[in-house]
Amino acid sequence: MNQHLHLITLGVRDLAVSRQFYAETLGWRPSAASSDDVVFFQAGGAVLGLYPREKLAEDALVLAEGSGFAGLTLAYNARSEAEVDEIIAALKAKGVRILKEPQKVFWGGYSSYFADPDGFAWEVAYNPFFEFDEDGNLKLG
Amino acid sequence: MNQHLHLITLGVRDLAVSRQFYAETLGWRPSAASSDDVVFFQAGGAVLGLYPREKLAEDALVLAEGSGFAGLTLAYNARSEAEVDEIIAALKAKGVRILKEPQKVFWGGYSSYFADPDGFAWEVAYNPFFEFDEDGNLKLG
Repeated sequence: MNQHLHLITLGVRDLAVSRQFYAETLGWRPSAASSDDVVFFQAGGAVLGLYPREKLAEDALVLAEGSGFAGLTLAYNARSEAEVDEIIAALKAKGVRILKEPQKVFWGGYSSYFADPDGFAWEVAYNPFFEFDEDGNLKLG
Repeated sequence: MNQHLHLITLGVRDLAVSRQFYAETLGWRPSAASSDDVVFFQAGGAVLGLYPREKLAEDALVLAEGSGFAGLTLAYNARSEAEVDEIIAALKAKGVRILKEPQKVFWGGYSSYFADPDGFAWEVAYNPFFEFDEDGNLKLG
């Protein structure tokens, strides 16, 4: 198993609501691999999938019950503090729930969070210690 | 906000246990950006981070309480059904908890799941409809 995380699938309560959020509020283009039952986005080097939560649990043979903090965060890395500010201001203007306003943080970066329709926490951060490759993916040493 | 998911951070109960799982059981090499407090892996075009769950919730300004299904799955896409079998057999031999044995699934692929130390469900699948780019990332149309 080589060192790849290819695909992250979010189990969502309402696929139409989540599709609209990612495709219209965030402005992402769904992949042609999407269907009425599942939505895929090529999200840089990773793929983000949306699938009904109950069906996702069933697919993994785990119980669907669960509540509270999902226990993980997703992150978009901006190129500057100003880009973080712009993104959060634009999302806020669209009614997106902001969990954390953009601010300098202890590790030396600048960070904010918003919530998607299921409450998945997306960080929008500028990390001056991280670099990008030519495709816009993070490239760590 | 362009179409990128750069980084996924898993909130973990025991950072040492999770570091060992990803670095030794899966055999992934931690990035030099890691420290005693956080571990990063360059996981293809995305970065996977490990960070204590309570601190992750605190960073996102959300409550850390949560239980049951996290509501999402992570996936590794293999190049063949045989590769799926090999990966799961090797993980099982190391004592990893297998949630779903490799099997043909309704959408036309071949899929299995294992659990990481916090119960995050990792799918190991062969999807004959997905293609890879030259870096080994998924490339959807």
